Amino acid sequence: MNPDILNERKKATFDIEKLTNILNGGPEKTKRRREIESMVLNDPDFKEQDPNFLSRSERYDQAVRKSAQMILKLREYGIADPEEIYCYKSCVHPGRPEPLDLHLGMFLPTLLNQATPEQMDRFFMPAWNLEIIGTYAQTEMGHGTHLRGLETTAKYDPTSEEFVLNSPTVSSIKWWPGGLGKTSNHAIVLAQLYTQGSCRGLHAFIVPIRDMNTHVPLPGIVVGDIGPKFGFSEVDNGFLKLDHVRIPRENMLMKYAKVDPDGTYFKPPSDKLTYGTMVFIRSMIVGESARALAKSSTIAIRYSVVRHQSEIRPGEPEPQILDYQTQQYKLFPVLAMAYAFTFVGHYMNQTYHRITGDIHQGDFSELPELHALSAGLKAFTTWAANSAIEVCRMSCGGHGYSRSSALPDIYVDFTPTCTYEGENTVMMLQTARYLMKSYRQARAGQQLHGIVSYLNEAEHQRIQPQLIAAKSTVIDFNDLSTLVELYKLRAAILVELAAKSIQKELQRKKRQEDAWNNSAIDLVRASDAHCHYVVVKLFADKLGEIDAAPIHSVLLTLARLYALHGVSNNSGDFLQAGLLEGSQLIEVTSHIKELLSELRPNAVVLVDAFDFHDRMLNSILGRYDGNVYENMFEWARRSPLNSTEVHESYHKYLKPLRSKL
Amino acid sequence: MNPDILNERKKATFDIEKLTNILNGGPEKTKRRREIESMVLNDPDFKEQDPNFLSRSERYDQAVRKSAQMILKLREYGIADPEEIYCYKSCVHPGRPEPLDLHLGMFLPTLLNQATPEQMDRFFMPAWNLEIIGTYAQTEMGHGTHLRGLETTAKYDPTSEEFVLNSPTVSSIKWWPGGLGKTSNHAIVLAQLYTQGSCRGLHAFIVPIRDMNTHVPLPGIVVGDIGPKFGFSEVDNGFLKLDHVRIPRENMLMKYAKVDPDGTYFKPPSDKLTYGTMVFIRSMIVGESARALAKSSTIAIRYSVVRHQSEIRPGEPEPQILDYQTQQYKLFPVLAMAYAFTFVGHYMNQTYHRITGDIHQGDFSELPELHALSAGLKAFTTWAANSAIEVCRMSCGGHGYSRSSALPDIYVDFTPTCTYEGENTVMMLQTARYLMKSYRQARAGQQLHGIVSYLNEAEHQRIQPQLIAAKSTVIDFNDLSTLVELYKLRAAILVELAAKSIQKELQRKKRQEDAWNNSAIDLVRASDAHCHYVVVKLFADKLGEIDAAPIHSVLLTLARLYALHGVSNNSGDFLQAGLLEGSQLIEVTSHIKELLSELRPNAVVLVDAFDFHDRMLNSILGRYDGNVYENMFEWARRSPLNSTEVHESYHKYLKPLRSKL
Repeated sequence: MNPDILNERKKATFDIEKLTNILNGGPEKTKRRREIESMVLNDPDFKEQDPNFLSRSERYDQAVRKSAQMILKLREYGIADPEEIYCYKSCVHPGRPEPLDLHLGMFLPTLLNQATPEQMDRFFMPAWNLEIIGTYAQTEMGHGTHLRGLETTAKYDPTSEEFVLNSPTVSSIKWWPGGLGKTSNHAIVLAQLYTQGSCRGLHAFIVPIRDMNTHVPLPGIVVGDIGPKFGFSEVDNGFLKLDHVRIPRENMLMKYAKVDPDGTYFKPPSDKLTYGTMVFIRSMIVGESARALAKSSTIAIRYSVVRHQSEIRPGEPEPQILDYQTQQYKLFPVLAMAYAFTFVGHYMNQTYHRITGDIHQGDFSELPELHALSAGLKAFTTWAANSAIEVCRMSCGGHGYSRSSALPDIYVDFTPTCTYEGENTVMMLQTARYLMKSYRQARAGQQLHGIVSYLNEAEHQRIQPQLIAAKSTVIDFNDLSTLVELYKLRAAILVELAAKSIQKELQRKKRQEDAWNNSAIDLVRASDAHCHYVVVKLFADKLGEIDAAPIHSVLLTLARLYALHGVSNNSGDFLQAGLLEGSQLIEVTSHIKELLSELRPNAVVLVDAFDFHDRMLNSILGRYDGNVYENMFEWARRSPLNSTEVHESYHKYLKPLRSKL
Repeated sequence: MNPDILNERKKATFDIEKLTNILNGGPEKTKRRREIESMVLNDPDFKEQDPNFLSRSERYDQAVRKSAQMILKLREYGIADPEEIYCYKSCVHPGRPEPLDLHLGMFLPTLLNQATPEQMDRFFMPAWNLEIIGTYAQTEMGHGTHLRGLETTAKYDPTSEEFVLNSPTVSSIKWWPGGLGKTSNHAIVLAQLYTQGSCRGLHAFIVPIRDMNTHVPLPGIVVGDIGPKFGFSEVDNGFLKLDHVRIPRENMLMKYAKVDPDGTYFKPPSDKLTYGTMVFIRSMIVGESARALAKSSTIAIRYSVVRHQSEIRPGEPEPQILDYQTQQYKLFPVLAMAYAFTFVGHYMNQTYHRITGDIHQGDFSELPELHALSAGLKAFTTWAANSAIEVCRMSCGGHGYSRSSALPDIYVDFTPTCTYEGENTVMMLQTARYLMKSYRQARAGQQLHGIVSYLNEAEHQRIQPQLIAAKSTVIDFNDLSTLVELYKLRAAILVELAAKSIQKELQRKKRQEDAWNNSAIDLVRASDAHCHYVVVKLFADKLGEIDAAPIHSVLLTLARLYALHGVSNNSGDFLQAGLLEGSQLIEVTSHIKELLSELRPNAVVLVDAFDFHDRMLNSILGRYDGNVYENMFEWARRSPLNSTEVHESYHKYLKPLRSKL
């Protein structure tokens, strides 16, 4: 063990294991996670070559091998609970998306939710047994977020009782679905349904795309890999061009919408049925933001106590770089954010499960708020995490840029979350739509419930700048509930500003839609402030559940840092709203500096509490034992370019050149 | 030509060619650049395979082939001017660093600057003829920014008149130098010189590392590639471990410092001699920031007029995504920044050349300011560009994530500029040191010259919040010089805040060094504000040189957007300082929205003016003709995973699995 990192661990002021249990949601969850981890990590069948040293085709090959093994093992060990499958999968492919992700995460669940009993008989068990390997093909080359814009058509032919699926243009080619390129033999294809001469909107169809025996693409199907990407190197994201491909009528997923043999169409009973899945996936992404932050901060903070550089006091040994205020100012807010988002993830997950019960009983009342919240928080947390990963990488200097740090991979595999499952700006505007509606209701005297109820509190005097400013000299920045209140008032004011911008546009005789577009900057800002408030509030709420005083104390420090760092970074909002005075910002900075010093002794143990196994982190900079340099040298020597002492290009190009000059 | 993009080009309000000439620094420069581009791009010897489809070893191989060809052609065409060589190289390896970069950019120039005439005879021509291929080995595994911390030793042995170079620890292994791993046969090694029992500090030594004939590493040398990185895939960044390697005394670069045969040591005459090179490289990096922004905004803006998505007004066709206010708000500030940084780059380049003349005449007076400015602007521009590239990438939705967009490559090859040639936070603190010194001088009544002279203007009343606030109701946000003034006052105030933080720490009896570290956050903030002021000022100055009214008009719009966007993003500073009132921020937002609308018709032609040849951009989204989708499909089909219809993993793993389940 590196002596520096050993020394850090002696400084812990709390019981790390207890904190790990809080982060995992209870001691039994920690235990089970570790069991699954050791099952996978000790299994020789999951041995792998470092993907950094492989070509893309080899990476794909290795991932398919491990995924196939995984399916076998899950059966062998009887692991069937979705959360446990997810955990197992995360160990088999540590941090890496894999070719079967959409089969497991979209194809099977979509069958469960939308297939008729007959379709379940026909497709589910073969899919469960991986005879049918499926993907979910929605996005097209020219169309993503806007579902109504999708061009693929499914025209019903009552004479043969078949649907004819077609890609009428280049831009209608299905593009991006994971596992589509080489792995899947079936796809659930989203297409515009036409029956009896009318377009009935988007519906889902099960389309066989490759021969079940030879795996060769079927007639009328052009399918392949969309080529290399920033990350996702193990995944064969694919394209699919359909040339009048015929499938039986029974291959439309008909649990809700239906087409009779004669072509008569029956609408689904509710258009909110798909909300649940979206909410679920978006709340999962909040958890992924937390996980990416936890990993990145673990790597950067551990390395920052091992790395010594420059000098603070002349003549003394080079200090650990974590002793520089600037380094603490980069990393500790990321650490605080990792904790904050973990708790937000817990909340979203619990709320989703609670509301799911209500939905099954036909009570949709809480769904709109949760839908709006999950959209905004998905965007808010992924944007924040996306930037923060790069802060961590760059805080590691040159070595952060090496693939051996794992930070480049964390970034490239995380960053798509800002785009997929709802592009972030679009998500923020969805949340804003809900906020505007709530604002109008509050103005009309309606009593709001849930998180937006602060829009009621108005007696609009309360959020008048002058009044607050008068009060502001007594703000206690040590008090977390005061900070929650500040964020709430900021959100209320920015929601009002956005609403006023729309009003102003309307007064200028702009159409409603143009007024909306011309206020989009303000609307995104309002959603951002709303989400920020929710995160600070949920962090504060979480503290109420923590009994152990030493843990409560360190989490309170993190929560205060999270909140004050946000105040400092968005100080314009707080000043503009009259919630703070300029002189108080200097106080905020002083508090932040104190919090950085307070956290310094616990920094390493706070990341230890995330409890990442070294093989799950796969980072030389983030090693638990801190033995960075020796291992970096070993890793580098295994680079494929070092397999020979002299690269062939020397003989081919450099040596012959001399005679020509 | 895609009709949307054709239509955009009809809307230009100015002569694109004239603007291109301004960006290039004159029509003759545009002409020569295009000549060189067409020389390279039409040369069949430089044909290449898309690196995205190659393994790292193949990428390195292709790069070496092209670099060897390049050396031949430069001779053939008699291109010897450094700027023209740089231009030629940029075409041969469009946007990609290459294995000979350090040979051309560091090894040869270091010889020119620091070699004696005898050493020039021995090394320069062989290096010019690429018999000697060299690199510059400074950074070690455990030591980067802090030169005094470097551990490699060069001990002089007067008995044999040799230096003994040694890597005493793992952390002393040379790490990162480009071209070191496989390409170079010599390295200029920076090592701590020991003579007559004393350490004389860091000096440069020419060390042969590979056999001139077989290219096999010499005895005592362990050399290789440091493994895959985020980017720089063509470059063999290397490691070098020296085990008591002996080189003749004459291999120390002795133009300034000297070691006599008996070991007597002579110091170099000035410690400012290396400042010039640092300033030069850092001002080049400012230009690279501009170039990366120009490329990224070209790609994102062109794609944003080709891409249609969602709806603004229901029932109407899907609008170009550039018509969304949020998209304009993402991209137009990046465009404005690209222009701003281009002009800053010009300024730095001109200033460097002007001052170099002075330096040759022994006048170092302007060097400290330029040194401080180049450090800060390097950090300021690279950080800003680094984030902005990712804004561009994410503004392209999913397709930005494809390697075919070129945006991932622009990012990974640009982002090291935040770390190398002076880590950015360290750079900001260097600038801060100069600002603090200047502030103290100004307070002591000394008259400052140059850019920091605003610290003199104090009569510190002038920057008292109340007074400004009283004036502020009449701020004319249309007037660029008012905005320059605002930035100047903000800088002055933040410099003062940082100085006061240090004073406060000292009053608490902190040591000077600890007071500095405890104020580091404020110091970085002050430097940032200083650099921001300089950029806005230089943009405004540039406008003074532009005659053509239509170009002046559109550049003024860009300059105002750049400045107001910065005010909005840093509104807390301006409000805290009392330079603005809360209510004026709403005005700022309105102005920004107006500027976005004003720029919209010229957006495409403003990026056209950067005049990137399609093959230099190498981006399907950024194609001049806008034919994105067809070409993306063609590109994807060439992906190596599509070379067979059925990937071998199907037969190896997926098919056999069925029988086991």
